[in-house]
Amino acid sequence: MRAAVIGGTGYGAIELVRLIKKHPFLEVGSVVSNSQAGFSFNDIYPHLSNVVVQPLETFNTERLSEENDIVFFATPSGVSSKLVPKILEKEKKCVDLSGDFRLKKSEEYESWYKHSPVDEKYLNQATYGLSEINTIEIKNASFIANPGCYPTAATLGLIPILKSNLAVIDSIIIDAKSGVSGAGRGLSLTSHYAEINENLKAYKLGAHQHIPEIEQVLSDESGTPITITFTTHLVPMTRGIMCTMYVNLKEKISTKKVFDLYKQFYQESYFIRVRPEGNIPSTKEVLGSNFCDIGLHVDERTNRLTIISVIDNLVKGAAGQAIQNVNIMNGWDERTGLTDIPMYP
Amino acid sequence: MRAAVIGGTGYGAIELVRLIKKHPFLEVGSVVSNSQAGFSFNDIYPHLSNVVVQPLETFNTERLSEENDIVFFATPSGVSSKLVPKILEKEKKCVDLSGDFRLKKSEEYESWYKHSPVDEKYLNQATYGLSEINTIEIKNASFIANPGCYPTAATLGLIPILKSNLAVIDSIIIDAKSGVSGAGRGLSLTSHYAEINENLKAYKLGAHQHIPEIEQVLSDESGTPITITFTTHLVPMTRGIMCTMYVNLKEKISTKKVFDLYKQFYQESYFIRVRPEGNIPSTKEVLGSNFCDIGLHVDERTNRLTIISVIDNLVKGAAGQAIQNVNIMNGWDERTGLTDIPMYP
Amino acid sequence: MRAAVIGGTGYGAIELVRLIKKHPFLEVGSVVSNSQAGFSFNDIYPHLSNVVVQPLETFNTERLSEENDIVFFATPSGVSSKLVPKILEKEKKCVDLSGDFRLKKSEEYESWYKHSPVDEKYLNQATYGLSEINTIEIKNASFIANPGCYPTAATLGLIPILKSNLAVIDSIIIDAKSGVSGAGRGLSLTSHYAEINENLKAYKLGAHQHIPEIEQVLSDESGTPITITFTTHLVPMTRGIMCTMYVNLKEKISTKKVFDLYKQFYQESYFIRVRPEGNIPSTKEVLGSNFCDIGLHVDERTNRLTIISVIDNLVKGAAGQAIQNVNIMNGWDERTGLTDIPMYP
Amino acid sequence: MRAAVIGGTGYGAIELVRLIKKHPFLEVGSVVSNSQAGFSFNDIYPHLSNVVVQPLETFNTERLSEENDIVFFATPSGVSSKLVPKILEKEKKCVDLSGDFRLKKSEEYESWYKHSPVDEKYLNQATYGLSEINTIEIKNASFIANPGCYPTAATLGLIPILKSNLAVIDSIIIDAKSGVSGAGRGLSLTSHYAEINENLKAYKLGAHQHIPEIEQVLSDESGTPITITFTTHLVPMTRGIMCTMYVNLKEKISTKKVFDLYKQFYQESYFIRVRPEGNIPSTKEVLGSNFCDIGLHVDERTNRLTIISVIDNLVKGAAGQAIQNVNIMNGWDERTGLTDIPMYP
Repeated sequence: MRAAVIGGTGYGAIELVRLIKKHPFLEVGSVVSNSQAGFSFNDIYPHLSNVVVQPLETFNTERLSEENDIVFFATPSGVSSKLVPKILEKEKKCVDLSGDFRLKKSEEYESWYKHSPVDEKYLNQATYGLSEINTIEIKNASFIANPGCYPTAATLGLIPILKSNLAVIDSIIIDAKSGVSGAGRGLSLTSHYAEINENLKAYKLGAHQHIPEIEQVLSDESGTPITITFTTHLVPMTRGIMCTMYVNLKEKISTKKVFDLYKQFYQESYFIRVRPEGNIPSTKEVLGSNFCDIGLHVDERTNRLTIISVIDNLVKGAAGQAIQNVNIMNGWDERTGLTDIPMYP
Repeated sequence: MRAAVIGGTGYGAIELVRLIKKHPFLEVGSVVSNSQAGFSFNDIYPHLSNVVVQPLETFNTERLSEENDIVFFATPSGVSSKLVPKILEKEKKCVDLSGDFRLKKSEEYESWYKHSPVDEKYLNQATYGLSEINTIEIKNASFIANPGCYPTAATLGLIPILKSNLAVIDSIIIDAKSGVSGAGRGLSLTSHYAEINENLKAYKLGAHQHIPEIEQVLSDESGTPITITFTTHLVPMTRGIMCTMYVNLKEKISTKKVFDLYKQFYQESYFIRVRPEGNIPSTKEVLGSNFCDIGLHVDERTNRLTIISVIDNLVKGAAGQAIQNVNIMNGWDERTGLTDIPMYP
Repeated sequence: MRAAVIGGTGYGAIELVRLIKKHPFLEVGSVVSNSQAGFSFNDIYPHLSNVVVQPLETFNTERLSEENDIVFFATPSGVSSKLVPKILEKEKKCVDLSGDFRLKKSEEYESWYKHSPVDEKYLNQATYGLSEINTIEIKNASFIANPGCYPTAATLGLIPILKSNLAVIDSIIIDAKSGVSGAGRGLSLTSHYAEINENLKAYKLGAHQHIPEIEQVLSDESGTPITITFTTHLVPMTRGIMCTMYVNLKEKISTKKVFDLYKQFYQESYFIRVRPEGNIPSTKEVLGSNFCDIGLHVDERTNRLTIISVIDNLVKGAAGQAIQNVNIMNGWDERTGLTDIPMYP
Repeated sequence: MRAAVIGGTGYGAIELVRLIKKHPFLEVGSVVSNSQAGFSFNDIYPHLSNVVVQPLETFNTERLSEENDIVFFATPSGVSSKLVPKILEKEKKCVDLSGDFRLKKSEEYESWYKHSPVDEKYLNQATYGLSEINTIEIKNASFIANPGCYPTAATLGLIPILKSNLAVIDSIIIDAKSGVSGAGRGLSLTSHYAEINENLKAYKLGAHQHIPEIEQVLSDESGTPITITFTTHLVPMTRGIMCTMYVNLKEKISTKKVFDLYKQFYQESYFIRVRPEGNIPSTKEVLGSNFCDIGLHVDERTNRLTIISVIDNLVKGAAGQAIQNVNIMNGWDERTGLTDIPMYP
């Protein structure tokens, strides 16, 4: 299958290219970048010299749908809402890595993203693609709204305890930390080397656009409306997300029991590695891979559960999960093309 | 006044040397390192070439108390408990930067530090030295137990809201992040460059020895026993601590009101900079300085207060606060020798 | 084929494991670590949880040669000289990633490495494995002395100009820079995070053990004895080597002509990417891959050629080239299992 | 004396502010930033909250010269050439940290900087201010062209051997490495965090505008025209420059003898620390200070001298040397306000 990538010069797009190249059933098709069309890919990304040689194209609905079997959108907010419908009309499969089709309520999209929402007709066609949780829906989908990076790490860590009915529902706090690649390739002072190196910075307190997405998933999965506190930090490293999450427990329960519960919950999920008691994952332990590793600790003094969930924001938090979803959609083993060991050190 | 530094080759000690050199009323006296005695300081720290030239000495009570007016201990846990009493017997002023004299209850020290506690007779002579809070006691003290790095950042951020009676007392969560210099100069895999660079790591969940220290301060200041949840993370940078802290509020209150409360509380405190609404400090904004900067945000959706407090762990979190305490003890302006602007970028 | 890895907990060894797992014709066999025998691999390297699960073994000649088809040694200097002969006696294929079998003159080994040299009988069985240069010898070899990281980057960059007879032979200067993973996983102050982060450090001036190796290769290839000046620097990053090399030219020649010469020289070499004029590679552009990228610039004012050569020290500079050599030894396409795109950013 | 800073939001300017605040005889006067005029300094640089509180101003010749005793220009190339003359007409002292007045030959400025050169009348008033070398001229100057960062590190390292008549004059190679702050605060992909972190990059081969400046100084000091090869690299750290320099020697001479020669040459220069044999400086050993540390090594195999010179690019390479020059101009001890120990770690 030929896979097109729209938004070709961003970090999400080149990570898609990297993963598509490894995949036995996919090949890199059209790569679209309106701003850089006509240039060769390796002019902009010399690391791709001799490997990906086709020129960057403009977005052309006809050509795209003729020459490709599936289209990945790795575009900024507000772009895929306009472009995806054109591809859907051609009855091609799509995966959108942006936030445009994730929120079921248009007014929430408008209020958090400050863009006009997409037409309901197309919004309804989108299947939210948290691979381990929405597996059945994904199998039958032809258009995936791929989850955000923070929501992936946060919800995979929280869902088992929420479903267990052990959590105090209004106590959830997510203290999230991300490497700088999450801010993309667009220039800004907050991604300027001398500003962020040797620095730790909190940002968008109470205003991050991933808040409604996390709440939507947690509310759906737990069957009850959930409001969270969510704080994001920028860490001086390129890749990696860690969510440190705090949940009050309704009753006394040991770390070991919580571990068993998570282990059981994710027994079929190759990419979720629940760590045994005393073993807390760090971001580098998933670098470059599609794993989401989860550590657990019950503080008996406060009866509060701390959950630590780590992913590579560009893999499980973006391009890797997109490939995993394509695997599921096509009935392939979900691990196809995604079995690389994390790169360490 | 001549100031001796014990523990001469650790990071706390060389930071003390750096700050003593800037101080108009202090000069570097004896520098003690049992392991490196006889070597010149600049053999071990070439950055001090031509600047600090005396040889490192062994610990000799007589000579130390004869040749110095004040003695700083920047030694590992379990060392100053043995050495400080010898200096106290000589009626010399001391500042201990280790944790040996901070906890008022010996059994807590033993249980968290895994060392034998110090004799009560000496423990009672120690004044806990959180400069902005214990100012009066410090003025009259001759022996200071200098606060830990995390406790400094955490308690300075929490005390105003606790004293206001607006906080739900059992809801306090401290998500703390530190640069690697906090782990000291001793070799270990967790300070090995290739392991920690491009990595974010949580450690000692529910077991960090600063937990009882924070609880002791908060309980004393609020007049009620307080139990916290405290998580520590290692961030790939050399210096800096950030505490992101979560407190449920008893009633609705705006960020602006909380800001006013903090601003009022710290109106006399030069080194505490309370940031106005929407302005959240990052660690680099205090680098190399004795400032503690505090940002505030009330999430109206959950009525939870987020407090972000940053310090340089080696300055306000160690050597700088030690100098500030010496200033207060001696009746000097607390800012003496500490007015450097943060180094940026 | 089952591949054993000796020296199992070092960075060279885990990189071998990562690459063997990707290889279609190889599988991870015994992993030997005398110091950690009995532990499971993922106790020491949690990033390998659920992926590599066999326990670490002690070195047992019988079992190793029975259960494996090829043995990789990723051991410190002075170790494989003792162990490789045991495996050779069993007529198993070996690749040694250490320096023990690289230098043809025993006295040079002794003088630069400060270890006793290996018995000539075994030394003579070793084929030096610079894949692109020694391809024919490697095809017929059963025991490879895998090149050092610096020698790989340096000699691949210098050989074409030396063979062209355009270079002033006694003018070669190699200014080399390496990430910290090159120093291995052993603890030392020079790999201690707070010492090397935000620091640039030159080391072992005129004394690096890779000097005789580089001179041996260059002398062999050019047919004339060559003495170089070689300086190494430690750069605050985990992976990557850059050699900036200076060569006086015997006659005026343009950058374009030198480019043509290199392009021609490496026309069959997939892993060598010669960059066109004005395009200078950086280390990140080969991260995680087996590429060696080369940039060229003739300074017409001084008639001096500057060559910039970059590799990932753990891949093309160690484990990747070892796999490439195994591919060549076995008559497989040299790219087998090594086609991953560099990870960027 | 009141000191104005023009170019107020760049890194050179805030470093000037940091150093002026430490200086006993200087105070921060006007701070000019045309782009940010009207804003308070600490809106843009929160690390200056409560410390530097005056608003940023526009450039107004009258007001500037009335309210200030000395004017520092920390502006991009092509700006001070237009503004400095206005201040000189008012007979105020100036220090220009940009390259506009450094090159004595206008045509060289034009060819390397791609800007129109300044009027000769004003160019002739500029005294090149390499503090240790041009001390006498600086004493009598009222307008200083402050040296570039690379030229400072390079020429301080090379002048003693050139003056000794031991160097082969056409053999000089300077392999220079810089932290990213040298590229300033302007946004560009080469200062974008995810591009430069974990990366080492060579740039501007044979085309760096500091080449003619270095050649001018070396030619002047040695009394013979000198052409160099100069390569610059970007290192993933914020501050610091290292120049690794190679010079062929006319006769056999030991490292010890070269050390003696340098030690003698710089015996009066507090800020130049010549390191003894076997002791090579790293950039962190001068961080935040005005020191230039120099290490030396003669390779007896090639009779080539390697000189390693390190500075903090923003201090000795910019703002610190500017203050040192002001000290000399005013007849103060050159160390005034500059005695801080490097910050370590």
